Amino acid sequence: MTAAEAGGRPVRLARAALTWLAEPGTRSVHRMVERDGPVTALHRLLTGDIPDDRLRAAVTARLAAGDPRRAAEEALARADRLGARLVTPEDEEWPARVGDLRRLALAGAERRVDQETAPPLCLWVRGVWPLAETLDRSVAVVGSRAATDYGGHLGIEFGYGLANRDWTVVSGGAFGVDAAAHRGALSAGGRTVAVLACGVDRPYPMGNAALFERIVDTGLLVSEWAPGAEPLRPRFLIRNRLIAAATAGTVLVEAAARSGAIQTLRRALALRRPAMVVPGPVTSAMSVGAHALLREHPEARLVTGVPHILEEVGRIGVDLAPLERGPRHPRDLLDDEARLILEALPRRGALGPDTLAARTGVALRAALRKLSMLEELDLVVRHDDGYALAPVRNR
Amino acid sequence: MTAAEAGGRPVRLARAALTWLAEPGTRSVHRMVERDGPVTALHRLLTGDIPDDRLRAAVTARLAAGDPRRAAEEALARADRLGARLVTPEDEEWPARVGDLRRLALAGAERRVDQETAPPLCLWVRGVWPLAETLDRSVAVVGSRAATDYGGHLGIEFGYGLANRDWTVVSGGAFGVDAAAHRGALSAGGRTVAVLACGVDRPYPMGNAALFERIVDTGLLVSEWAPGAEPLRPRFLIRNRLIAAATAGTVLVEAAARSGAIQTLRRALALRRPAMVVPGPVTSAMSVGAHALLREHPEARLVTGVPHILEEVGRIGVDLAPLERGPRHPRDLLDDEARLILEALPRRGALGPDTLAARTGVALRAALRKLSMLEELDLVVRHDDGYALAPVRNR
Repeated sequence: MTAAEAGGRPVRLARAALTWLAEPGTRSVHRMVERDGPVTALHRLLTGDIPDDRLRAAVTARLAAGDPRRAAEEALARADRLGARLVTPEDEEWPARVGDLRRLALAGAERRVDQETAPPLCLWVRGVWPLAETLDRSVAVVGSRAATDYGGHLGIEFGYGLANRDWTVVSGGAFGVDAAAHRGALSAGGRTVAVLACGVDRPYPMGNAALFERIVDTGLLVSEWAPGAEPLRPRFLIRNRLIAAATAGTVLVEAAARSGAIQTLRRALALRRPAMVVPGPVTSAMSVGAHALLREHPEARLVTGVPHILEEVGRIGVDLAPLERGPRHPRDLLDDEARLILEALPRRGALGPDTLAARTGVALRAALRKLSMLEELDLVVRHDDGYALAPVRNR
Repeated sequence: MTAAEAGGRPVRLARAALTWLAEPGTRSVHRMVERDGPVTALHRLLTGDIPDDRLRAAVTARLAAGDPRRAAEEALARADRLGARLVTPEDEEWPARVGDLRRLALAGAERRVDQETAPPLCLWVRGVWPLAETLDRSVAVVGSRAATDYGGHLGIEFGYGLANRDWTVVSGGAFGVDAAAHRGALSAGGRTVAVLACGVDRPYPMGNAALFERIVDTGLLVSEWAPGAEPLRPRFLIRNRLIAAATAGTVLVEAAARSGAIQTLRRALALRRPAMVVPGPVTSAMSVGAHALLREHPEARLVTGVPHILEEVGRIGVDLAPLERGPRHPRDLLDDEARLILEALPRRGALGPDTLAARTGVALRAALRKLSMLEELDLVVRHDDGYALAPVRNR
């Protein structure tokens, strides 16, 4: 087994195949992989042993389109020809920080929204730098595709200033602020990373093809989707969580009221990473989203330049120290109420929500919500006569 | 006694004379007036019965320059000829809201800074509208003298929008944002109030003379300084507290790093009034002060337009309800530690700071600070053997 194949070829193939079978970040797939490992999880999906209805439907549709193992083999071959590589959590260069997405997935599970918020199962990478080291000191600079001169100017200035101080710039591959940030970093001779919502061999938009080639030479192109994958619309939102999770902090430069970049910043907020917003003229439609974020989220930090950004991300080692990194047991992520309920469940037999609410002092509505979440995390199972602890291996 | 002379001529003359003897807002003078009334307070100042060294020096210097009673008579005569009037707390049109400055004066007393933060003793007014009613629904719009086109545009827009919704606009008399806000209000046919740092008969700056004449016709010119008084430099900062205190909220439109308008907003924050800041391009030096305020003060609210401003000041009846208006006993304004110390003092005799600290559980340093403040408020007196309660009339 070579260093590039840590974890073994079956594991790597399984991760690639799983990502082909279901969109990256799918919570139920991630849970299966955490519990059973990628090879068994893939086997279960292929044999139809899928508890989640929604996932079963998605997998069935995908299987009709092709064979996931073959798709994975082909993707690896294509990556080889391209000079790209597959990076998995078993590899040394895996950026452990993205594991914090568990937090986001858990919050989404509780609210029964945002299916694709789990950590990535693998990443396709083009470029010479080791991924984890490149992302270690990195800041996301995101904003509108339709940036004004002001946004374009700031994208370049921040990209340049961060790269100049030895920080890696991370952004998407769009026109506007994304491209400006990459150009700024490149002009400082620094590293810049474009995280794409399609294969790393598909320049999208085409107008940025030359920029992507420059990034491959001195930085990295990264994607959760295998080479050849198309930039489908929902993928941009799935991708945004990765930009927020892979970096030490996110800066929003310009955003209209409904810009996708707003969502990247919301992801950073949910991950409790420094979430920074640059104000602009109140007369500019392209700053409406930025100002709305600053008004709504007291944790979002107003920044006006690179020194402010460095002040925020420089703190990460201190402020975020209590947030552990790397794999954890789902149980560690439970809040107090969910923990109380879990502890109130007897070793044998089931209890109704009413009884559990009464015993724990948790309000009935909240207890029902926590029970749904615990069920989704496979920590409890629902019987006719109430809820019971799941078989021991899950706990 | 006419309605315009509520409180009686001696009281009105005394208030005008006191304001001539010491700069408006002087805390020690305000304390004497609250305790003894203006006539007795003036008598004490004229006979040298002044406990405060600093005040005694100021009064002595001023007395060498003229007779305060004669100056007051002359100012009243001058106001009469001008069509201006003197408004005092005894008058119906007195804006009770300015009494909240007691809070600011008390905070300053504790920190031994900001001598001129007490409420005004009287106000000189030019214009036909009753003062209190005009200020009841009012918003201060302040900002840089050297406003950019952006600041000028917003000054006009906010002035127009507020006046259009029947809110009075309040500002200083400077070029830039002040003048723009007044012009906006005038163009909406609304009421606007210029609060000056000189006599209401002295257009300063001269370039705004025509604007002041328009304001007199449809709004009000207001000043704490008698007609004829000069716009001395320190007076602008003293004036700023009045702009913050007289209005339901303050909006800062544009401010460079050291703009005086920043201080007006800080006064609004200290008064717990809505303190609103308009962001601008981070590339503009004229928004540096505004952004710094937003970064430093989580209570400062980012606003981008008139609807946001109305949202903030519209809440005043709800949010600020617990803050009482009008005269109060100084004792009501004490914090818990000061109250504890006051209550720990015996009916007779004195106690040393050590003993008081031990009995109250307040740290010695804090106890000494609170005792200084209580002494300045005439609630305790210092003896050779420690601190004692002041004679009953003060408590």
